[in-house]
Amino acid sequence: MTRRKHGRSAGQRDHGPKGGPRLYGLHAVAAALKNPRRKITQLWLTEAGQKALTALPGTAEAIARVPTTMLTGGDLARLLPEGAVHQGAALATEPLPEPALEEICEAKAADGQRRVIIVLDQVSDPRNVGAILRSAAAFNALGLVTTERHAAPVTGVLAKAASGALETVPLVTVTNLARALDDLADFAFWRVGLDGQGTTDLADAVPGQDIALVLGAEGAGLRRLTREKCDLIARLPISDKVESLNVSAAAAVALYELRRPR
Amino acid sequence: MTRRKHGRSAGQRDHGPKGGPRLYGLHAVAAALKNPRRKITQLWLTEAGQKALTALPGTAEAIARVPTTMLTGGDLARLLPEGAVHQGAALATEPLPEPALEEICEAKAADGQRRVIIVLDQVSDPRNVGAILRSAAAFNALGLVTTERHAAPVTGVLAKAASGALETVPLVTVTNLARALDDLADFAFWRVGLDGQGTTDLADAVPGQDIALVLGAEGAGLRRLTREKCDLIARLPISDKVESLNVSAAAAVALYELRRPR
Repeated sequence: MTRRKHGRSAGQRDHGPKGGPRLYGLHAVAAALKNPRRKITQLWLTEAGQKALTALPGTAEAIARVPTTMLTGGDLARLLPEGAVHQGAALATEPLPEPALEEICEAKAADGQRRVIIVLDQVSDPRNVGAILRSAAAFNALGLVTTERHAAPVTGVLAKAASGALETVPLVTVTNLARALDDLADFAFWRVGLDGQGTTDLADAVPGQDIALVLGAEGAGLRRLTREKCDLIARLPISDKVESLNVSAAAAVALYELRRPR
Repeated sequence: MTRRKHGRSAGQRDHGPKGGPRLYGLHAVAAALKNPRRKITQLWLTEAGQKALTALPGTAEAIARVPTTMLTGGDLARLLPEGAVHQGAALATEPLPEPALEEICEAKAADGQRRVIIVLDQVSDPRNVGAILRSAAAFNALGLVTTERHAAPVTGVLAKAASGALETVPLVTVTNLARALDDLADFAFWRVGLDGQGTTDLADAVPGQDIALVLGAEGAGLRRLTREKCDLIARLPISDKVESLNVSAAAAVALYELRRPR
């Protein structure tokens, strides 16, 4: 760990030696500490960070189990990517074990509402993916499916935007999205692509089915093959003043619509 | 303009000499070019940026009216804050003239639905404010009211996240938010604060009134005085897996709910 103080490349500062991300920010760190599946190799805290973190429920015991180094805010910042809002807390961790697609397809909805899985077609902005994870947790989605290539890597930026939801929403990475969409159909998920070109409003589209909600990247949208694999292309009712919603705003609105009691 | 090439401080690279923001990114730049109220002092384009920009409807004529400098992507990046995703296009502009609060209160909804104004209580992340502007345009909100202090400055980051909506959604800055909330009541807007502690679901709260939707900052939430000025505190129906939605996700969902036909 001699590189700790001078590790300057983005790759080194994003990721620990075992390929897991460096997570930072109070909510992301607290949620990781409380996740029994999370293998944490090192915790870094400033005095203020320690105080704020231990004030959150259930963290004090978790901190005691992890190798912890106290340091100044400036030294902590040097361990992390430029501009990381660390709030006095960061940790190095191994990547989380990933469930198989089948596992999330067989999970039950907690509340008797329809089941929803989110599928991202090459959404590459880690802030957007993090915010979508946070909304997925808020609206009880069963999990998030993303591609191995051209997708946002699981970094501290993503985890910070997810505000703890990286620990609670299963994330499944697939090499072939078209095949994953076939598998989702086998598990009786109705595959609904979201796109401004859709002819049906999402609210009218799908009375009660289990849904795989498919979202494309900002600008590019859904790829042709992804679109062809969808059972339906739906739209959100937006004005013509903007071309589209931000993808994480669209995900939040769609999740809200799909999960609302009817 | 000798500082152009070496202007290195964030302030200089965020803002032009007349205090207006430097805007960048294709959508933000195209929307500014097409906004007749926008006084643009300088346009910078790379060759690729020029090609992409003129491919968008209605921009070619607008470009012809503005002093334009062609340059390389690297030179353009040096005019902008670190990490700005400029997509080959940027401009310097004066700040937009701001309407008075009364003007947006007297505007009509375009579609016969209820009127909605968004009020931000010290939301300081420019990406969030930009994303909220974009959703406000998408869901035909009449405008956005924000505080002069402790709010996100109108920078290129905000405009990029707004994806053009900075040009179409009236932005009103007030010194005293409590007084603005009084004014909104005088114009018969029902002031609804959004907060996880709310006892009523937003969907059930407000059958058909015109609404001032009041949102607080991430973490801090609504200030006491702001909360006291609200006629009602409502919540969105989210699970207990996360404390809250991201503020821009919450704004999008609330706007969708308030503006849907009933």
